[in-house]
Amino acid sequence: MSPVTIDDVEAAAARLAGTDIVQRTPVERSRSLSERCGADVRLKMEHLQRTGSFKTRGAYNAISLAIGESGEGSEGETDGPAIERVVAASAGNHAQGVALAAADAGIDATIVMPESAPAAKIEATRAYGAEVVLRGSAFPEAMSHARTLTDDPGTRFVHAFDDPDVVAGQGTLGLEVLDQVPDADTVLVPVGGGGLAGGVATAIKARSPETRVVGVQTEGASTLSESLAAGELVTRDEPDTIADGIATGGLSDLTFDLLDEHLDDAVVVSDDDVASAILLLLERAKQMVEGAGATAAAALLNDDAVDELDLAGETVVPLLCGGNIDVTTLKEVVTHALVDRDQLIELFVRIDDTPGTMGEIATLIGGERANIRTVRHERSRPDLPVGDADLVFEVETNGPAHVDRVLSAVREAGYEVAWTTREA
Amino acid sequence: MSPVTIDDVEAAAARLAGTDIVQRTPVERSRSLSERCGADVRLKMEHLQRTGSFKTRGAYNAISLAIGESGEGSEGETDGPAIERVVAASAGNHAQGVALAAADAGIDATIVMPESAPAAKIEATRAYGAEVVLRGSAFPEAMSHARTLTDDPGTRFVHAFDDPDVVAGQGTLGLEVLDQVPDADTVLVPVGGGGLAGGVATAIKARSPETRVVGVQTEGASTLSESLAAGELVTRDEPDTIADGIATGGLSDLTFDLLDEHLDDAVVVSDDDVASAILLLLERAKQMVEGAGATAAAALLNDDAVDELDLAGETVVPLLCGGNIDVTTLKEVVTHALVDRDQLIELFVRIDDTPGTMGEIATLIGGERANIRTVRHERSRPDLPVGDADLVFEVETNGPAHVDRVLSAVREAGYEVAWTTREA
Repeated sequence: MSPVTIDDVEAAAARLAGTDIVQRTPVERSRSLSERCGADVRLKMEHLQRTGSFKTRGAYNAISLAIGESGEGSEGETDGPAIERVVAASAGNHAQGVALAAADAGIDATIVMPESAPAAKIEATRAYGAEVVLRGSAFPEAMSHARTLTDDPGTRFVHAFDDPDVVAGQGTLGLEVLDQVPDADTVLVPVGGGGLAGGVATAIKARSPETRVVGVQTEGASTLSESLAAGELVTRDEPDTIADGIATGGLSDLTFDLLDEHLDDAVVVSDDDVASAILLLLERAKQMVEGAGATAAAALLNDDAVDELDLAGETVVPLLCGGNIDVTTLKEVVTHALVDRDQLIELFVRIDDTPGTMGEIATLIGGERANIRTVRHERSRPDLPVGDADLVFEVETNGPAHVDRVLSAVREAGYEVAWTTREA
Repeated sequence: MSPVTIDDVEAAAARLAGTDIVQRTPVERSRSLSERCGADVRLKMEHLQRTGSFKTRGAYNAISLAIGESGEGSEGETDGPAIERVVAASAGNHAQGVALAAADAGIDATIVMPESAPAAKIEATRAYGAEVVLRGSAFPEAMSHARTLTDDPGTRFVHAFDDPDVVAGQGTLGLEVLDQVPDADTVLVPVGGGGLAGGVATAIKARSPETRVVGVQTEGASTLSESLAAGELVTRDEPDTIADGIATGGLSDLTFDLLDEHLDDAVVVSDDDVASAILLLLERAKQMVEGAGATAAAALLNDDAVDELDLAGETVVPLLCGGNIDVTTLKEVVTHALVDRDQLIELFVRIDDTPGTMGEIATLIGGERANIRTVRHERSRPDLPVGDADLVFEVETNGPAHVDRVLSAVREAGYEVAWTTREA
């Protein structure tokens, strides 16, 4: 028998219905994505969940079960909470989910995070009242340390995905989607450790077998297709992706079994697709979604995935499962977009290195209302005649037509000029 | 009698109710802003309006009136549309609002935009089916040109704010807020040309006189307080603010009269407040709001404004009136935040310029998992002994604690090291 069943998910949903820790998040149609892939795309806005991700669902369910507050009808005979503390290891959203759920339950939470965790995530976790222990330069060390803190019988370790109660809690997102979009043909789920996907697939295939559930991963963190093909867990040591929330290195036995049983399909997208999805959701839907949260939407921007899944004409629901993007990552996404659109370029202007030249050229560029960010001299290129140099201007423009106007202005003044998109 | 009355606004609301061009936008409570200023803050999410701003409201109302589709009950005796084309000048949201409303009405739209308009906004306007004419390096030239296109009696010029029909349409946002938050104590409205504020104040003061309506501007574009104090229009030639959507240089006679009559108060915020508001809305509410759209929320981050308005304990509704941020501006906001949080710093390491040193120091920094963005030599500082140099590393960190670890690692290897936040 399956370690997580639809009954577990429905019991979790009943538990969650009684709290404001977990909210029902909206579904919104996306005109841009619908046009882009020829489907009716409904965004499940789970990034608007409290703490900014779905992780509260699983954490709340696991903690509720552990402290024995599961039952209506058990009144009169309470032994008090069976546990007094939860421990978790996380570099990201699970930390905040556990911290909030523990605070709501009135028990202590100790969250072990790697020293490399962004300060903003550490602060957010502390703000929910958890004790944060920083340990190790990367996640595995934090996890090992967290395991050493769980000997006390009053302590419950809450794993981010290798835990049936957590998976059942995440599955409530699947029931919510079916309730909001009963005619959903395909639900796209990002896959890291497989907790969300395992729960959602369990729920959806039980209640609406004709709805397809598709797992989505990024190339740099892909283990799902490999595992399903091999018929056993395949892991990778150093997952590397902009979608840091799903860079777990692999599923667990628990989630592999669930996905092997319930998942209909798996596709892979690139980090570029994810960056494009983050930007499209920002610019069009006005929503801030993190890399992992945008991974399902990224499949709709990937022509191979759209073709492979034959999405045209379907009602498709990508789960935007989190919004806690690191500001450094956001800057990279935005800079990449500017370069892509010729709004951030480098102009190479050949000069003979006489005084006053830089001022003249800068005035020409400024006259076209383009903004100069930096200037440097480049004298060492092998093809440069002695005495000549390139002045390299990093310039902000409004786009390709503006680049043309700037180039013309500099050329008309008699300068030899070339340009490239700036490397982000 | 007032050029725009509550009857005009209510008639506009009736017109808008029959279209899907203008949608009812949600109101969401903001926990972070509520905690921050001690009030119950409800965000009016008008940045989720079609075209990404409130501008469709006024454009739709003006165009509906112009083509004579105003009346139920006028059936049978139609002369056909009184106009065949609308003309507008805009560098931003008004362009898209007019373009979409005209397309919906089945008439042509010619939008004159300055050449400096971001390519993304030009493309968006064209995508709604409008003819875009690029004219002039800045807005006033575009406006002058647009005025020359309106001689044809079949053409209706739609000004962004100096037009009673447009103002009445924007006012529908005020009625919607009262409907959604009937107990609103204070409504905060960004003020550029005053079309939105004039309409909203007209509506709210007529239907709920006890609700306070406050106009918000940025220092670099402030003309409202000055105009109200002087009792006449005060304009400024070169408004300069991150909130480009309200950098109009002043109100019109029409909107000044409305605001002089209806507005309760006016406050001014800084560009830094606006940038902080954009970032807070991104990181906490997961919403992408542009500078002008974040200006009302920025007042809640400005202690002077919160004190002056005595907001504590009130129910406060900032109007997030637009979400069409330019990607260049978004990059600036994000970079500024990284610098602020010590996540983007410059390390100055004193070296004696022997080969291999850069590699050694870079390895130390990388060993602490900090990311080096750029490196340069600085040899020309006046206090440097001959033969010495500073190696300057631009480094990404996770925040202050991480900066300390990087500094320690470099110091323990025997180097003299200093650091500064990097200038954005």
